[in-house]
Amino acid sequence: MKDSNSVTSATKSTLLMTQQQLLEHWQGHRALTRRVIEAFPEDEFFSFSIGGMRPFAIMIKELIAIAAPGAKGLATDTWEQLDEEIDLGQSKSEILSFWDKATEDINYWWSQIPLERFQEDVLAFGMYQNKGYCNLLYFIDNEIHHRAQAYVYLRSLGIAPPAFWER
Amino acid sequence: MKDSNSVTSATKSTLLMTQQQLLEHWQGHRALTRRVIEAFPEDEFFSFSIGGMRPFAIMIKELIAIAAPGAKGLATDTWEQLDEEIDLGQSKSEILSFWDKATEDINYWWSQIPLERFQEDVLAFGMYQNKGYCNLLYFIDNEIHHRAQAYVYLRSLGIAPPAFWER
Repeated sequence: MKDSNSVTSATKSTLLMTQQQLLEHWQGHRALTRRVIEAFPEDEFFSFSIGGMRPFAIMIKELIAIAAPGAKGLATDTWEQLDEEIDLGQSKSEILSFWDKATEDINYWWSQIPLERFQEDVLAFGMYQNKGYCNLLYFIDNEIHHRAQAYVYLRSLGIAPPAFWER
Repeated sequence: MKDSNSVTSATKSTLLMTQQQLLEHWQGHRALTRRVIEAFPEDEFFSFSIGGMRPFAIMIKELIAIAAPGAKGLATDTWEQLDEEIDLGQSKSEILSFWDKATEDINYWWSQIPLERFQEDVLAFGMYQNKGYCNLLYFIDNEIHHRAQAYVYLRSLGIAPPAFWER
């Protein structure tokens, strides 16, 4: 990882967190989100809704549209438009395959993100002007946000969701 | 803030994020959570529930129990037990006062957290063994998680919640 190459051990003890630690934090959340997808019955994953909100499958489409393209954008500073209309198939198993592909893609691109990028201004997806670390935290927070809504969906369906604290 | 004192400008460009930036990130989330509390009708704040989950007022009690004591614990490395049974009054306005007091307390304690703490093992609230940054991120993530559940409550009540991306 970049941070271990470009930061000396003397300064490492004064780092809030390393780039590798932030990746592990993100992937830990993504592993939990994967278990929440798995917890849904096939039908309800695509159809269940409360208060006019989107079914969890549509939220997951958004998260997949952001995740690997977001990591690639931070690595290359070349951003394509956010594409939430990608075809992810019509089954949980197909969507889980796309989820797992994104997990690998994130790891691939992460190692190419220059550490300096996190403090630079970036225009994520050509739309979201913010520092790199703010955009990255937004990707993670947005996932926590939608996944928590799926927790309510599951509870409403009488299904116990996976423990929030297990990553 | 500690980081601007203890980290030279030469290394600052290689920081993922500074301690001050992490505080601003947290307080930005807390400002949004405050607006979500405000969006609830008085009664439903204390009583509305889906799928047997806790009313938002009880979740907010948990968040208040964690926030300032968590910042104090990171600053002092002395942890008291998590106390979710604190009396926060019986009205939204009383709870909002406790929320605002916590905002000030977090700022106070934050400036006393040594930067090294984030990479040290801490036993948060005498129960949660993890690195300092992991515990702090957990406090934030747990707030995002429960607030997102309140978004579903509000939608279910026909109320549009505050925009997630405004902090």
